[in-house]
Amino acid sequence: MKILLPDTIDLDPALPEGWESATIDARAEIPEEHWDAAAMVVWGSSRKNLASAAQNLPDLRLVQSLMAGVDHIMKAGFGDGVQIASGSGLHSATVTEHTLALLLSLVRRLPEARLAQEQHEWSRELGGIQELHPEGRITTLLEARVLIWGFGEIGQHLAPVLKALGAEVTGAARSAGERAGFPVIAEEDVLGALSETDVLICVLPATDATERAIGAEVFDALPEHAIVVNVGRGTTLDQDALLAALEDGRIGSAAIDVTDPEPLPSDSPLWDAPRLLITPHGAGGRPVGASERIAENLRRLDAGEELLHEAG
Amino acid sequence: MKILLPDTIDLDPALPEGWESATIDARAEIPEEHWDAAAMVVWGSSRKNLASAAQNLPDLRLVQSLMAGVDHIMKAGFGDGVQIASGSGLHSATVTEHTLALLLSLVRRLPEARLAQEQHEWSRELGGIQELHPEGRITTLLEARVLIWGFGEIGQHLAPVLKALGAEVTGAARSAGERAGFPVIAEEDVLGALSETDVLICVLPATDATERAIGAEVFDALPEHAIVVNVGRGTTLDQDALLAALEDGRIGSAAIDVTDPEPLPSDSPLWDAPRLLITPHGAGGRPVGASERIAENLRRLDAGEELLHEAG
Repeated sequence: MKILLPDTIDLDPALPEGWESATIDARAEIPEEHWDAAAMVVWGSSRKNLASAAQNLPDLRLVQSLMAGVDHIMKAGFGDGVQIASGSGLHSATVTEHTLALLLSLVRRLPEARLAQEQHEWSRELGGIQELHPEGRITTLLEARVLIWGFGEIGQHLAPVLKALGAEVTGAARSAGERAGFPVIAEEDVLGALSETDVLICVLPATDATERAIGAEVFDALPEHAIVVNVGRGTTLDQDALLAALEDGRIGSAAIDVTDPEPLPSDSPLWDAPRLLITPHGAGGRPVGASERIAENLRRLDAGEELLHEAG
Repeated sequence: MKILLPDTIDLDPALPEGWESATIDARAEIPEEHWDAAAMVVWGSSRKNLASAAQNLPDLRLVQSLMAGVDHIMKAGFGDGVQIASGSGLHSATVTEHTLALLLSLVRRLPEARLAQEQHEWSRELGGIQELHPEGRITTLLEARVLIWGFGEIGQHLAPVLKALGAEVTGAARSAGERAGFPVIAEEDVLGALSETDVLICVLPATDATERAIGAEVFDALPEHAIVVNVGRGTTLDQDALLAALEDGRIGSAAIDVTDPEPLPSDSPLWDAPRLLITPHGAGGRPVGASERIAENLRRLDAGEELLHEAG
């Protein structure tokens, strides 16, 4: 049987017996010679490529996405006999790293240090003897109360690193309880918990329920020193409300790796918002362990077992 | 018995029975009413304050520094009956945090992102689909080979966090072996190890042996993509050599929290060095667990036990 690999990433899965692979142009229609494929991997694949697969591959049984979100694949028109697996978990390490970079940059005031450096100024305010917890700002994660809103694979990967840095970490997910050793509150209780939150990290997926969930109510409920980081999806955050909250000093600072729309238009006032870091959706974008995931899901497909991160 | 606490930090040690505390102006001579003190804590204390203690306190038995380095106290002229304890370990958490902030900022290219943001530019180069390990640069700590030169309390605190982020961590110290579960090479073998080092983190103390130890030879031996971070002491790094290495592209990027001299003069060419982050000695500066350390060392003093981090 044949599995189609996209040319947008180096992959070398250890294929189970009976499988062979072919690499295809992820941006183009699938050539007729590969219409016999039984599985395909999706990464940076165009709508045209997906539509061609849905239409032309009668023997297709598995679509393995390397992205965590598979909405666009679910909507591509694949038949009932096609199983779709998401790449959930493949981005936990990279998104954790980027989130930490953004958060620590704000906590340790690197933007201010950069400004002082440009002016050749050795800032007394940013160095020397300091209070561990100065009034009105968060300058360390030690004892900081961090709420991770969206406590899936990424959140649970991030949480222990924050804990190792001395933070008190709570998750927020659909149902309350304990996950991966951390206390988790229900999403409907997030608003009530924000007054006791120093750092809010959002890793929400894009759904109807999460659209603009991070809005004015959230910014108003947080303490004025709070740091907000969004590495989930751009549509989950109300950008006008964020801009207003930063301009009015209702939150301390923020960082976003995702916007709505993307790319953020050059005339967006968000670019010049005070105390805001913007990165251009660079947190993930490089799956880790993709070949192993593909091999394992092919094995499970052959064995009739449930796939890892089977969607829908 | 009396212990003198400096007014430069909030302290509340649980004093052993028989001890009382008094808070003094750390920048001034010690007033005569406190010349009966048996112990004193040093934090941001002036030379005048130390000299006054060495000269005027006949009953003094313990000088507890909250700084890791106690060179200046050793030279202040205290008598043989005075034990000096360093604040080693009290800065491990804060310096770890700052080191990570600097390192992750460089790894995740936040200075470039900041520049793009200023220009309202959604940089395709910094986001979207990326290679995990692009040729010629370090864009993640995953599988990065990190060498921590100076593997004491701070290095050993930092190492597990880097490991949790996926880095392969080695220490370098006076003697080779294993410490805190990490492989350690001897300092004389550092130069030979640098060609296999992606990230060099320096936490060296200021001694005759370490002066300008991080010099041209080091920068030449590192790969061109290497990241160098110095959070030890400014005198351990040859700033002219660093500037040349950055200008010539012999290393990838660097961050320094310490300089020589401090403050760095406004006409230093280092301020404008390419791909260099400078913070004004802000990594530590806020001891964590100081009160507990003081209480414990008073207890040990009373019991005649060896002090924690007794100097000299």
